[in-house]
Amino acid sequence: MEIAYKDIKVIGFDADDTLWVNETYFRDTEHEFAKLLSAYETENKIDQELFKMEMKNLDIYGYGIKGFVLSMIESAIDLSNGRINAASISEIMDLGKEMIMKPVEVLDGVEEVLSSLVDKYRIILLTKGDLLDQERKLEKSGLSKYFHHIEVLSDKKESNYKNLLEHLEINIDEFLMVGNSLKSDVLPLANIGAKAIHVPFHTTWEHEKVHDKEVKEVNGTYKTVGNIKEILELI
Amino acid sequence: MEIAYKDIKVIGFDADDTLWVNETYFRDTEHEFAKLLSAYETENKIDQELFKMEMKNLDIYGYGIKGFVLSMIESAIDLSNGRINAASISEIMDLGKEMIMKPVEVLDGVEEVLSSLVDKYRIILLTKGDLLDQERKLEKSGLSKYFHHIEVLSDKKESNYKNLLEHLEINIDEFLMVGNSLKSDVLPLANIGAKAIHVPFHTTWEHEKVHDKEVKEVNGTYKTVGNIKEILELI
Repeated sequence: MEIAYKDIKVIGFDADDTLWVNETYFRDTEHEFAKLLSAYETENKIDQELFKMEMKNLDIYGYGIKGFVLSMIESAIDLSNGRINAASISEIMDLGKEMIMKPVEVLDGVEEVLSSLVDKYRIILLTKGDLLDQERKLEKSGLSKYFHHIEVLSDKKESNYKNLLEHLEINIDEFLMVGNSLKSDVLPLANIGAKAIHVPFHTTWEHEKVHDKEVKEVNGTYKTVGNIKEILELI
Repeated sequence: MEIAYKDIKVIGFDADDTLWVNETYFRDTEHEFAKLLSAYETENKIDQELFKMEMKNLDIYGYGIKGFVLSMIESAIDLSNGRINAASISEIMDLGKEMIMKPVEVLDGVEEVLSSLVDKYRIILLTKGDLLDQERKLEKSGLSKYFHHIEVLSDKKESNYKNLLEHLEINIDEFLMVGNSLKSDVLPLANIGAKAIHVPFHTTWEHEKVHDKEVKEVNGTYKTVGNIKEILELI
C-alpha cells in the first residue's frame, strides 16, 4: 500500500532518541548504578530489579529522570537489604544530576531535516517525560527555532494523541508523527488512522519494546527509515 | 482605576491552592521530615536547610513533588552528616509517595465558579509543576469537564505567559488569570498588561512570597478577592 503524505500540514517529532541521544545515558547510568551495588548483587540481577522497580513506580512517578533516580534509590535500599549507606545514596543522586545536566548530542541529519521542513510545515515537539528537562534539552540543542511549540504528554497512548490533535485543531489526515519508538510514536498513530514514520535508534528501553504481533497488525500503514534524512524523500 | 473585564474571552486558573489544597500538604510533610531528623537538628533549622536545598536544586529539578523528595533526601544526608540510615530514607520516599497519592480537596466555591463560567469563556488550567501530578489531580477533583485544556509551564514568568498567549493565539486584552500566588499568577500578568485576580490562600510557600515594593508598582491593575466566588461579581 502506498502511503499518501500530500495532505500533511503538521509534523510531530518525538525528542529523546529521535532528535538527540537519550537512552544511551540511561544505559550508562544503569551501569554505574550496578557498579555501586556490586557488593550486593550481579549486574544482571541489579538491572532486572531496577527495571521492575521502575515499572512498579511508573504510575506514581511517570517518565523522566527524577522518577528514575527515586527508583534507583528505592532499588538500592532493597537490593542491599537496607545496608546501603548515605554516601552511596548521594552518589546515586549525583548520577541523576549528571544526567539532567548532560550536554545534548543532536543526531545525524536532524538539523538538515528540520531546516528543510520548517517553511512548509508546522513542526511540533511531542514528548513524554519532564517539561523542564525537555525545554532545557531543546534550548541546548539549538533546535528550538524550528519548533512552533513543545507539547509534553503524560503518556503517548492513542487517547493522548486524540486529545492533542483535538486541542491543537489538527485534522487527523494532516498529521504525521516521526519517532524512534514503535510503541509510543508509531503504533498509537497507526491505530487511530494517522501517519507515522519510524526512525529506529540503536538502543530501546525495555518498556518501549513491542510484540511482533502488534506491529504486524498495522503493517503497511507506516514507514520505517534507516536515517531521519530519508523522510525528506518520502513527504 | 476601574478594571474593565468586558473583553475577557479566556480565563486561566492556577491549580494548586487556587482550585484545591496543596501547600498545606507540603507543610505537613516538612513537619514529618523534621520529626524524622529530630535527633540531628531543631525543626526550625531543618526547615531552613531544606528550603535552601530546594532553592539550590530548583534550576535542576524544577517544581513538583519528585524534586522536593530528592531535596529532602539530600538535606537529610547533609543534616545528619551522612549518618542517616536507609530506613529513614525509605520513610522520606514514602512521604513523597503519600503526597502524590493524596485525595484532592477542592476549595470552597470553585465548582460553583467554574460551572458559571464554562459556557461563556474558554477556561484553561495553567500550572507549573509536574504534568502527571496535575493531570491526576484534575481527574480526581472532578473538575476536568470545565477545562478546555491544561497547560503546564516550566515556570510562570512574564516570558512564559507571553509565549503561552502567543501559542494559544489569545489577545492580551482577552485574557484573565486567576490564582493564589502574587508572584506567579498576578505580578507577571500585571507587568505585561494582562488582567489578573488574586485569590489568596492561607499558606504561601516562602519561594512565592514577594516584596511590598513589587506589589505597589502594579497597584490598581489587579483585584484581590477573599473568596473565589467574588470573581463572578467582577466579570
